[in-house]
Amino acid sequence: MVRSMKKSIGAKTLLFPAPVLMVGTYDSGGKPNLMPASWGGICCSDPPCVAIALRAATYTHGNIKAQKAFTISIPRQTQVKLVDYLGMISGRDVDKFAKTGLTPVKAEKVNAPFAAEFPLTLECRLKHTLELGLHTLFVGEVIGAQAETDILDSDGRVDVEKLKPLSFDPEYYRYHGMGGFLGTAFSVGHDFSP
Amino acid sequence: MVRSMKKSIGAKTLLFPAPVLMVGTYDSGGKPNLMPASWGGICCSDPPCVAIALRAATYTHGNIKAQKAFTISIPRQTQVKLVDYLGMISGRDVDKFAKTGLTPVKAEKVNAPFAAEFPLTLECRLKHTLELGLHTLFVGEVIGAQAETDILDSDGRVDVEKLKPLSFDPEYYRYHGMGGFLGTAFSVGHDFSP
Repeated sequence: MVRSMKKSIGAKTLLFPAPVLMVGTYDSGGKPNLMPASWGGICCSDPPCVAIALRAATYTHGNIKAQKAFTISIPRQTQVKLVDYLGMISGRDVDKFAKTGLTPVKAEKVNAPFAAEFPLTLECRLKHTLELGLHTLFVGEVIGAQAETDILDSDGRVDVEKLKPLSFDPEYYRYHGMGGFLGTAFSVGHDFSP
Repeated sequence: MVRSMKKSIGAKTLLFPAPVLMVGTYDSGGKPNLMPASWGGICCSDPPCVAIALRAATYTHGNIKAQKAFTISIPRQTQVKLVDYLGMISGRDVDKFAKTGLTPVKAEKVNAPFAAEFPLTLECRLKHTLELGLHTLFVGEVIGAQAETDILDSDGRVDVEKLKPLSFDPEYYRYHGMGGFLGTAFSVGHDFSP
């Protein structure tokens, strides 16, 4: 018997948790830029694609339209102050890499930069652009990925307990960590009983 | 000085963390169905839109194409066995609500069901369909949302510490919780120094 007490809370985009994604692009002059974004996610396994949604007002938005390429890096939770600061300044006004002391590295396979200090980076080629309203959805095909060796396990796969990524609360715009292990997919369900 | 030791790990969709989203739909006979999906995210603030990506092989995929509507519910971490079990069986073969003892409720504003037992539900009207390959990206406009009162704070907003959502590791397909508070966006960055 379910005791449910539901309340209507309006039309809100409350998907928990959102990721914290650092989007790397070059502008038309070749200046590298970085911004945090939390509207986005994985959208296809084959070909491997990810999506990010950005407002047209951001410098990154114009860079992606022009360059047709971007990187997405996953920061460590210890980088939360840096991540947030990068969302407070605009590449229109400053060189964010110079301002923060980050090291720009050109991606191997696409014309976009990333910061060497972030532990995991996906290199993306723009595949689709969908205008949704305030945000534009950019779908990128993942052409390659690079990881800091200290986040890899002995099988060469990313160990989330070593990565310690951030997550994002879309209600209060707050950063959180990623929580502990609770079960393996397509496995823990065997223990379910109604 | 950054000491970076990067390794190329191939073209993988490693955005951490992914959410755990329960997608509710009706089939052509009006039978309610539910499946977990982790490829998706928020994609526009105005109008409020969210995206989920599904394989054409899923029963839910055909239901969304036919009904142009779906719900997305966020489960509690205590529901992890149920969530995983719902990904092990298909609505093509069984009535998942009947099989698991969940209570189907018709959404207020769209023709799609949700389970009363999940604490947070977004009601979505299909707005865009983008074929990407193995997965189809469905963008839904959020028309309304309903929350269990025990996850709301005194301002009527969702309190993530009460919700305790799941998150998903896209490398090892493992369920995790959402971690603790680390800082408020557009605020903690003031404490950054290079």
